[in-house]
Amino acid sequence: MSERALRVAVLGCGTVGTEVVRLLTEQAGDLTARTGARLEVVGIAVRDTTVPRADVVDTRLLTTDASGLVRDADLVIELMGGIEPARSLVLEAIEAGAGVVTANKALLAAHGPELYEAAEERGVDLYFEAAVAGAVPVVRGVRESFAGDHVRRVVGIVNGTTNFILDEMTSRGVGFGEALADAQALGYAEADPTADIDGHDAAAKIAILASLAFHTRVSIDDVPVEGIRYVTAADVEAATRGHHVIKLLAIAERRTTADGDGISVRVHPALLPLEHPLAAVHGAYNAVVVDTEAAGRLMFYGQGAGGAPTASAVLGDVVAAGRNRVSGGRGPAESRYAELPLLGGDEVTTQFQLRLEVADVPGVLAEIAGTFGEKGLSIMTVTQEQVHAADGAAVLVVVTHRASEAALAATADAVARIPSVKRVLAVTRVEDV
Amino acid sequence: MSERALRVAVLGCGTVGTEVVRLLTEQAGDLTARTGARLEVVGIAVRDTTVPRADVVDTRLLTTDASGLVRDADLVIELMGGIEPARSLVLEAIEAGAGVVTANKALLAAHGPELYEAAEERGVDLYFEAAVAGAVPVVRGVRESFAGDHVRRVVGIVNGTTNFILDEMTSRGVGFGEALADAQALGYAEADPTADIDGHDAAAKIAILASLAFHTRVSIDDVPVEGIRYVTAADVEAATRGHHVIKLLAIAERRTTADGDGISVRVHPALLPLEHPLAAVHGAYNAVVVDTEAAGRLMFYGQGAGGAPTASAVLGDVVAAGRNRVSGGRGPAESRYAELPLLGGDEVTTQFQLRLEVADVPGVLAEIAGTFGEKGLSIMTVTQEQVHAADGAAVLVVVTHRASEAALAATADAVARIPSVKRVLAVTRVEDV
Repeated sequence: MSERALRVAVLGCGTVGTEVVRLLTEQAGDLTARTGARLEVVGIAVRDTTVPRADVVDTRLLTTDASGLVRDADLVIELMGGIEPARSLVLEAIEAGAGVVTANKALLAAHGPELYEAAEERGVDLYFEAAVAGAVPVVRGVRESFAGDHVRRVVGIVNGTTNFILDEMTSRGVGFGEALADAQALGYAEADPTADIDGHDAAAKIAILASLAFHTRVSIDDVPVEGIRYVTAADVEAATRGHHVIKLLAIAERRTTADGDGISVRVHPALLPLEHPLAAVHGAYNAVVVDTEAAGRLMFYGQGAGGAPTASAVLGDVVAAGRNRVSGGRGPAESRYAELPLLGGDEVTTQFQLRLEVADVPGVLAEIAGTFGEKGLSIMTVTQEQVHAADGAAVLVVVTHRASEAALAATADAVARIPSVKRVLAVTRVEDV
Repeated sequence: MSERALRVAVLGCGTVGTEVVRLLTEQAGDLTARTGARLEVVGIAVRDTTVPRADVVDTRLLTTDASGLVRDADLVIELMGGIEPARSLVLEAIEAGAGVVTANKALLAAHGPELYEAAEERGVDLYFEAAVAGAVPVVRGVRESFAGDHVRRVVGIVNGTTNFILDEMTSRGVGFGEALADAQALGYAEADPTADIDGHDAAAKIAILASLAFHTRVSIDDVPVEGIRYVTAADVEAATRGHHVIKLLAIAERRTTADGDGISVRVHPALLPLEHPLAAVHGAYNAVVVDTEAAGRLMFYGQGAGGAPTASAVLGDVVAAGRNRVSGGRGPAESRYAELPLLGGDEVTTQFQLRLEVADVPGVLAEIAGTFGEKGLSIMTVTQEQVHAADGAAVLVVVTHRASEAALAATADAVARIPSVKRVLAVTRVEDV
């Protein structure tokens, strides 16, 4: 085994950073054997060196001079989060010829192409397994395992907070507010939960996965997002009655249109049948289903967050980047050769479920079906819910065939104006593939 | 993009070989972009060049001179199966400095260490994702993603044939013979199903995974195997009644003993609680659960066999080996630095479930419990099955705490000699972690 040492700079020393430093120290022997070189932490950049740190952190390594640290390292591990100064420091590290490992999804979702290109041009590695679904090795899967295949569709539960909340609502029958409060009390949701519950965190992750899966630049700004704030206990209850479950899905799929192939990337809550593999993903777990042409359907499942799981993913990347450093090789590069167009809302069709409170009188179903027909929206099934509705009212559940958002909106408007339709209770997307 | 071409030799042109050749041809543009060099098939070695081939196979490339082909290639894809001549040809390819991709689990499970060492010494790549669980990227996961972590346990359903058979027995209530005949009729089982149903195929795969996960040489000869031939419809029915399912599990786990850490590797049918993630793996699908110290529990799921899924895994490896060839780098090497001892039967403890047909008379339970106590085997639960047993008889289901095979065997013998115990109906291992 080589006596060579690689100089490792760690940027950021929060939960994940501390855990990474701990593993680098405690597993030094194993890491040397696996990398083919000793991994020597030469510095840990922090904002404030005087803050108390966990015992595993050698305070002599702390520095506020991140820029100086980066220019003198073989490998840079970026765990600061946020856009700046992370972006500038990663670019400096690349420019200085260091291999970079980052867990920063916000940075990649906003500035991925710039960073990928800089790394490609300079001939250095940029690894980021931990940026999507924590320890679940879906980035490596999409980036490397399916390199000889064509990805058709990526559908994931990639935000543990929202999955925990929806799972609480489903299993305990509580409303959104109570489930959110539980998630906060248990540390699954932050005091300001906006990025999670409004779907922005999931959007960043699916933008990264979509870029890899379809060899096309996708930024977080390209991803239409709808969060779970407006999912009600009644929606969840109705889903359960219909043998479905509501999940916040991050979806990237290749679609064939009249103008050729394009990709649709989006985040929204959707009804999943209970037999779907993602329906069984409970609590704060993450899972990603990938459908490919040759390999068929695959699923990756595991813990999507937390210091130790994220650190495990970071260290896997550090070993890979370190081995490349020793052998003189390169990890997989990004490729944007496909440059598929991103499809807008009207080019993307989805199935919808509408729950309608209607007067329980003869002829109402014919009237509703007529309106759907006029608007060109095709009905797949209509079911009357076996629930106690308001006096003289019934609840109809209409599931459509695939339709565009625009067609759906026009139809829902027209249906709402039918006198015997009292209320449109909910409109929810259905994903059954 | 480089104009460079890599000379690719394909050994074997059966189902997987044909599919690999098809993908290499049809996806040539994508593969060039992803590899950074054109992949040029320079020959396909077969036993008989006169056999009719699928249209995608250019018959001018066929040759019976595998050895000559191998010595003139940058990348060798070995898809012949079996030990010889595959072993000699892979060694020749390594010696000649070619990167090797193989799907040959039998070869790796029997001669892995020899091949890994040859590749390491010569400084070339040896990739084999397709050898375990087809397209499911568990080899890459264990070999690369967890390189900064410690694996505790790998438990997999890695044989689609036996999973299909057990799933049929569970869902349709049929016996083993009928389910096997169904599997053969549908092409999920071969005319001679021995390797699958007696667990040898699963043993080869878990030997490979155990070697990677624990950095220790594990050969198929180290793996105690029990197949599913003796699982009866009554066993499956009893499992269902107890909210369990019987699966053929391939297990590799690290255990701490009085003499230090060791690993246990084994294949046998076991009862799994319905909530276990592997309980939901149906049909011919494969799945592997990996428990690690830092990352926690992860699961990989997908199609474990078939021409297209296997070819997808092969191509993923070909792109990785090709990229290394272009950049001058090396893929992950095997490492056997841990050299953990393999634990034998008496050092490994498992939970057991015994189903006993007993006389329905007072005092029988006390007698049985006394016998377990004398033999030092600790009972966790006893349940009387709510089934119609023979006249004057009842069925007791005893689940033990963890015990060694030897302790179990001695206890089962003593219990069988109790006069009020009419028959030991079944003894099955229970895996509930």
